[in-house]
Amino acid sequence: MQKIRILEKKAGYQFKKKALLERALTHSSYDRDSCYERLEFLGDIVLDAIVGIHLFKAYPDSSESFLTDLKSAYVNSRNLHDTGMKLKLHDFINFNNYELPKLDDFVEAFIGALYLDGGWKNTEKFVKKFILSRKLEPMSNHKNILSMVAKKCFGSIPVYTLVKESGPSHRKVYRFKVKILGKRYAGYGKATCKKDAEMKAADDLLSKLKKHVSSVAGLTGRNNP
Amino acid sequence: MQKIRILEKKAGYQFKKKALLERALTHSSYDRDSCYERLEFLGDIVLDAIVGIHLFKAYPDSSESFLTDLKSAYVNSRNLHDTGMKLKLHDFINFNNYELPKLDDFVEAFIGALYLDGGWKNTEKFVKKFILSRKLEPMSNHKNILSMVAKKCFGSIPVYTLVKESGPSHRKVYRFKVKILGKRYAGYGKATCKKDAEMKAADDLLSKLKKHVSSVAGLTGRNNP
Repeated sequence: MQKIRILEKKAGYQFKKKALLERALTHSSYDRDSCYERLEFLGDIVLDAIVGIHLFKAYPDSSESFLTDLKSAYVNSRNLHDTGMKLKLHDFINFNNYELPKLDDFVEAFIGALYLDGGWKNTEKFVKKFILSRKLEPMSNHKNILSMVAKKCFGSIPVYTLVKESGPSHRKVYRFKVKILGKRYAGYGKATCKKDAEMKAADDLLSKLKKHVSSVAGLTGRNNP
Repeated sequence: MQKIRILEKKAGYQFKKKALLERALTHSSYDRDSCYERLEFLGDIVLDAIVGIHLFKAYPDSSESFLTDLKSAYVNSRNLHDTGMKLKLHDFINFNNYELPKLDDFVEAFIGALYLDGGWKNTEKFVKKFILSRKLEPMSNHKNILSMVAKKCFGSIPVYTLVKESGPSHRKVYRFKVKILGKRYAGYGKATCKKDAEMKAADDLLSKLKKHVSSVAGLTGRNNP
């Protein structure tokens, strides 16, 4: 119980139902019947809504694609992992695996529990303090940019292939390859989720194309607000 | 103005700021500077949150994957298109293209405008009446099922390839092929968004495998709550 108080103090919120917080911090390897997974589903949705609504209002003149990319920067797994580190969440998680489960999932579960216990306002306060407080740049959607480049410069399309899947089931690593159909350049990317691996592969291929194909360099500027 | 009242009556909500509703119904081909796109971003997020929170509470014993699949069934573009048809939204959209823009996007923009004008409660009322009222089955994630089958039955992985992209930019059709790496069976799917096309290809390949590979048939049951 003492332990949970430390986390509540860090997070700036005291739970009425401690069992909810306990559940948010419990991996299925520790207790299959009372684990974080449903709360992660809820937290993911609530976080998306709070961040999206905030950005919509904070950037009244920005395009929908700018808002989408900026939201990705805030809710992506790396940023959530950082939030978990700030809260030292790893000290509070109950698990029986050899490896620590993914921290970003528990940040979402924590947000789900907070929403159920404290409602929208308290959750918003937490999200503003721990997730929206940093100034981030929009996360470019490299896949979209590569599609546009493939079409405009080569009249073709990018093709993504999963070339390798490795690691244990709770810690999979995916390696993707991307090529522009009919062209020789290829990009590679690996990450713990497929989408990130594809994005990295697209980014890798874009960098190569920029160096070697002059018409590509002019097309791939920053995504402006 | 008369026209907008008809829609408000159908939807069961009267807008305080009519300009918001007008914007939600305006395609960029009609007015580039005041169109539905930002409202679609907002509506998409708010809809997801309302549906997700509702299902979380309505199915207290269901798994996270059941909730994810059931949410997909409610917020997927086909269901939103049906909602648009129910509201006869096509009668109210301002556009200058030859073809009518996608109705599901305007349903999301309508929800975004409703949220800004009427707040969470009114939006929730609309979503419950027009989107959550039908009893739907969870939309199985065929890609996940195929991954599982590929691994358990063949020790391999599915590989998706975009084989064709056709149609004008506002009405693209994507055709995907999926194979199990190192095996001869292939599945095909086409749809107006890539994710749906991949899902259909996975579903097609699963059907073929079920017929021809006895070990697959036993694995691919329904996703239980």
